[in-house]
Amino acid sequence: MRAYEIAAGSTSLDGLRRSDRPDPQAGPSQVLVRMKAAALNFRDLAIALGRYAGGPVKDKVVPLSDGAGEVIAIGAGVTRFRVGDRIAGTFFRNYIAGPPPAGPRAALGAPPADGVLADLSVFNELDAVLLPPQLSFEAGATLPCAGVTAWHAVEMVGRTRPGHTVLVLGTGGVSIFALQFARLAGARVLVTSSSDDKLQRARALGAAVCINYRNTPNWDQEVLRLTDGRGVDLVVEVGGGGTLARSFQSVGMGGKVALIGVLTGVATEANPFALMMKGASLHGIFVGSRLMFEQMNAAIASATLEPVIDRVFSFDEAPEAYRHLERGAHFGKVVIRI
Amino acid sequence: MRAYEIAAGSTSLDGLRRSDRPDPQAGPSQVLVRMKAAALNFRDLAIALGRYAGGPVKDKVVPLSDGAGEVIAIGAGVTRFRVGDRIAGTFFRNYIAGPPPAGPRAALGAPPADGVLADLSVFNELDAVLLPPQLSFEAGATLPCAGVTAWHAVEMVGRTRPGHTVLVLGTGGVSIFALQFARLAGARVLVTSSSDDKLQRARALGAAVCINYRNTPNWDQEVLRLTDGRGVDLVVEVGGGGTLARSFQSVGMGGKVALIGVLTGVATEANPFALMMKGASLHGIFVGSRLMFEQMNAAIASATLEPVIDRVFSFDEAPEAYRHLERGAHFGKVVIRI
Amino acid sequence: MRAYEIAAGSTSLDGLRRSDRPDPQAGPSQVLVRMKAAALNFRDLAIALGRYAGGPVKDKVVPLSDGAGEVIAIGAGVTRFRVGDRIAGTFFRNYIAGPPPAGPRAALGAPPADGVLADLSVFNELDAVLLPPQLSFEAGATLPCAGVTAWHAVEMVGRTRPGHTVLVLGTGGVSIFALQFARLAGARVLVTSSSDDKLQRARALGAAVCINYRNTPNWDQEVLRLTDGRGVDLVVEVGGGGTLARSFQSVGMGGKVALIGVLTGVATEANPFALMMKGASLHGIFVGSRLMFEQMNAAIASATLEPVIDRVFSFDEAPEAYRHLERGAHFGKVVIRI
Amino acid sequence: MRAYEIAAGSTSLDGLRRSDRPDPQAGPSQVLVRMKAAALNFRDLAIALGRYAGGPVKDKVVPLSDGAGEVIAIGAGVTRFRVGDRIAGTFFRNYIAGPPPAGPRAALGAPPADGVLADLSVFNELDAVLLPPQLSFEAGATLPCAGVTAWHAVEMVGRTRPGHTVLVLGTGGVSIFALQFARLAGARVLVTSSSDDKLQRARALGAAVCINYRNTPNWDQEVLRLTDGRGVDLVVEVGGGGTLARSFQSVGMGGKVALIGVLTGVATEANPFALMMKGASLHGIFVGSRLMFEQMNAAIASATLEPVIDRVFSFDEAPEAYRHLERGAHFGKVVIRI
Repeated sequence: MRAYEIAAGSTSLDGLRRSDRPDPQAGPSQVLVRMKAAALNFRDLAIALGRYAGGPVKDKVVPLSDGAGEVIAIGAGVTRFRVGDRIAGTFFRNYIAGPPPAGPRAALGAPPADGVLADLSVFNELDAVLLPPQLSFEAGATLPCAGVTAWHAVEMVGRTRPGHTVLVLGTGGVSIFALQFARLAGARVLVTSSSDDKLQRARALGAAVCINYRNTPNWDQEVLRLTDGRGVDLVVEVGGGGTLARSFQSVGMGGKVALIGVLTGVATEANPFALMMKGASLHGIFVGSRLMFEQMNAAIASATLEPVIDRVFSFDEAPEAYRHLERGAHFGKVVIRI
Repeated sequence: MRAYEIAAGSTSLDGLRRSDRPDPQAGPSQVLVRMKAAALNFRDLAIALGRYAGGPVKDKVVPLSDGAGEVIAIGAGVTRFRVGDRIAGTFFRNYIAGPPPAGPRAALGAPPADGVLADLSVFNELDAVLLPPQLSFEAGATLPCAGVTAWHAVEMVGRTRPGHTVLVLGTGGVSIFALQFARLAGARVLVTSSSDDKLQRARALGAAVCINYRNTPNWDQEVLRLTDGRGVDLVVEVGGGGTLARSFQSVGMGGKVALIGVLTGVATEANPFALMMKGASLHGIFVGSRLMFEQMNAAIASATLEPVIDRVFSFDEAPEAYRHLERGAHFGKVVIRI
Repeated sequence: MRAYEIAAGSTSLDGLRRSDRPDPQAGPSQVLVRMKAAALNFRDLAIALGRYAGGPVKDKVVPLSDGAGEVIAIGAGVTRFRVGDRIAGTFFRNYIAGPPPAGPRAALGAPPADGVLADLSVFNELDAVLLPPQLSFEAGATLPCAGVTAWHAVEMVGRTRPGHTVLVLGTGGVSIFALQFARLAGARVLVTSSSDDKLQRARALGAAVCINYRNTPNWDQEVLRLTDGRGVDLVVEVGGGGTLARSFQSVGMGGKVALIGVLTGVATEANPFALMMKGASLHGIFVGSRLMFEQMNAAIASATLEPVIDRVFSFDEAPEAYRHLERGAHFGKVVIRI
Repeated sequence: MRAYEIAAGSTSLDGLRRSDRPDPQAGPSQVLVRMKAAALNFRDLAIALGRYAGGPVKDKVVPLSDGAGEVIAIGAGVTRFRVGDRIAGTFFRNYIAGPPPAGPRAALGAPPADGVLADLSVFNELDAVLLPPQLSFEAGATLPCAGVTAWHAVEMVGRTRPGHTVLVLGTGGVSIFALQFARLAGARVLVTSSSDDKLQRARALGAAVCINYRNTPNWDQEVLRLTDGRGVDLVVEVGGGGTLARSFQSVGMGGKVALIGVLTGVATEANPFALMMKGASLHGIFVGSRLMFEQMNAAIASATLEPVIDRVFSFDEAPEAYRHLERGAHFGKVVIRI
């Protein structure tokens, strides 16, 4: 089968290479999937650049955690899926529900777990979900990491409901999902960006307030002004160390900041004591469980919500897709058709 | 001031009489309110008919728990309101937040707590809330009992979210609020009624599925069919003993039945063991706290949601308003302009 | 290997028979366990008597859901366990965490899932947990159904904490676990029984109040009296239809009744409207998830809590163990050593 | 009546002065209390030293938030208390239940709200609670700030239960309450201190593990070692900026850090991204609601838990009590008998 690999020790996109691999088989409790689409996250870029977690990958690995495809064979004992099912794999292996399990967790696209940028992929049947029926494979491929992360923030941490106000930083993949889910849950949404064009698109998706942080560097003060001094119920914080202090100022009494790490290890001067007087809290989010994925898919199906895709690249253009993400000019998700 | 009273021992609507009372004053921590509108609930009818709780009222009482008006004077030490504020009183006295307090609770419109069907009313400042700004007094008057009850069911018990399915029985005041709140929270809503006309109006409010229980007496089977056998996440059960067994059948794994009593003491053959295998639960709901009222108002204001008023009667027509409710032909709330 | 079977169509304990079966093997993701002990629940008795769920079993089946033993072989790909581990299987197959999954669930000891009353048993590695280290196999065997059910009631439904009051009906296996867990969580516990001797033993386990319901048939009034009229925070209701109405009276404002079914289909005249004015709720409980089992085991290990075993029978005495349970004279769990 | 005052602009303990004030009266909805004891918190010291929040107090104020006494008169309309009741006031005025209210909150002992270091004190009846019956006034006086803060951390944030592990930093008033409440809730408790003597006393109160952070400066590594690498479920973090980074390391998957501020504005280099991979969270705590106080008192009464008092000073020795707290040699609470 055709696949891409990140070479061992890769520190640039030159480490992303084509490869021919033998076709995999579905073992017991596994499904074999013909992949139709995959989607990129900043984590994938960081892995290729050798900047993720422990540095450059020590073994070659098929990249990308997020993909969707069609089941073409099932192994012995499989009960959750049938041939022909349209599915996506979960970001983590073996994280079904409840709090994250202790111990090391394999996540697709980094050693030891090959990712989905290949013609074929094998999943344990417990580590996959049916796609919402109305979604294309391209749309379905956007869900496993960015969609579940946003759902986790908006629904699990924020318990967002009508009457709530949600502040979403930026317009990348997670942020746009968070905007959509928060609107679906009846909340008022504020969005920040450095681009008026992107803010206009956010407004078209239902954002009530759009703040250009280049024109308004003290955007936390603007958030307070626009909420009658009360602050917001939830901040979806993807901006990293540079924005955290303002997020702490923006959140209201009993509010929550959902901390979604693009790159770990960023220095921050944010003083968490700002949370204390408000009884507010800060919640680390690292994707989520299969149950969250299933609940999100039920919502997407019921509301016929459509993920926002910035651009679709062909399989051969995969390196260009990485570069497009790297430039940061996207709005929503960057997808590769396989 | 003008007022209505329910006569001591009243067992019919003849007990509802006009009365002249001295104008009340705002004592310390109290606000004096010029009432503009009041709304009826079945509880009010039951009180007038001598069928509520302990039987006919032992003392005369000004009826109706739900009203809205304008603050015209404030007592010493009042900090929550100013003259000119548009407010509604809470159903219970002194139930701010958290679980319902132990001990007897005074609820407006039954002894010992006079209700709001009068020109003037006095509230402790802790027992009132600001109206959502876009609402008329007539719309605001519908909220204290029916609105808060529906919010309690949909948001507190059901924690309704996108992807959930909610079954609402009937089209009275609580039911229509529940339909509106569940839609606002992103849920799919099923409604039952005996009237195709009312079902059509429910559909216009966003109900996805409408079931006429005269044509479909086994409506629980229909609910299961329309949810792929899974059942619903929440039943807003206002139907009383006659429907509870079917509600138990309609609810899905881990689902919830919110039990809203129209009249207590109705016999039921519903076997709660039906809940056991599903890990489902049954939740008694008796209106709610001031905090729930405030959260609901934030949602109504943010979404510019409009309460559904069936008909507005004049102050002089109050007895006719009771009869209109008694006939059960209404859709939404029955209101009296004061 | 040696095993017992319930014969197809069994309607009496004569249907419980010895059998010789080929030794099973551990397939992929499975563990092979040498069973050391098993424990009985009323469900097991009902299955043997042909009174469980859909009537007599249609296929022969190895009985008993609850057992503990030692891993003697592991299949391909197993990561959770090693040879020599002391484990118990979970009551349900494939219920890891979160709300109970939709669709039919296989539970051990009823078709299609063989139980554990045999020399050897095979579990999917996901469907087993390590025993608390200090427990004997006999003690460990008591946990999968009765222990997890009690934990579910006390911790998941009741969120029992210091200052709470918990009412436990009876002194069978689930009830005694509930007493122990509620005490461990800092609650005051009331216990009912028809035997002063059993009540004395409950007191030795920490029950603060013991009520003999033969002497005090209106025990709900006694519960209210002993809680200054406030009622309890949680009722662990295992008594069935005959006690439910009194449980509804015994629970306080915002309290919870955990409904644990011994035998489904018991008629009840309990009127759930009694819950309404109190904002109380009724929760169906059907054992629980593997996560609950693991959390319970952490508590048992940390507190060195010892399950209460009424009597241990030998493998050959299995039918006598069933009869002992049937007589209802036990206090705590009935165990079979294998 | 006799009272102490903090002089306007006070920046040292010289600002703490005796004063004679007219006896206050109970207005409507108020209770007049003969104070019997008061207790100190670091906040009180910071206020006297001019280091609290906005700097030195602008108006003179009676100090201390925490006190207990006996009701000697009640104002018009009071229903919650009678003359002779033994009560404590709440830290905040008008915070009954639910999330903290928006807007400025008056807390006793800082302008504009006089504290309790006086012969007489007046409370709104909503802002007071009955003492647990077995407690002395000295013990009762320790509860309003330190007790409620610890309860908030252990029960509201941590939802501490059997099987949990709780790390308590230090042995001051809040820390010792947290140790006691966590033990009562069935948890295993680890305590840090720089004093072997204090650690020995913590062990006598039920601490399972005691870590001297002078001997073990990398105490977070020790915490991980003693929890088999899993980390703790809850950290009660009172240490301020210098310990937060280690608290983030000490907490486990899905764990919680309860942030209790001694002095705001302390610089910290703790990187909250450490929380992200663990799905852990950081919760600001600022005392709590009256409902929390009542729930705590129910637990204290039921368990006959005894607050730990380090030393009791006479009314005349109040300045010496402040100095004792300032020296930091105390274990538990510092109390003044009035």
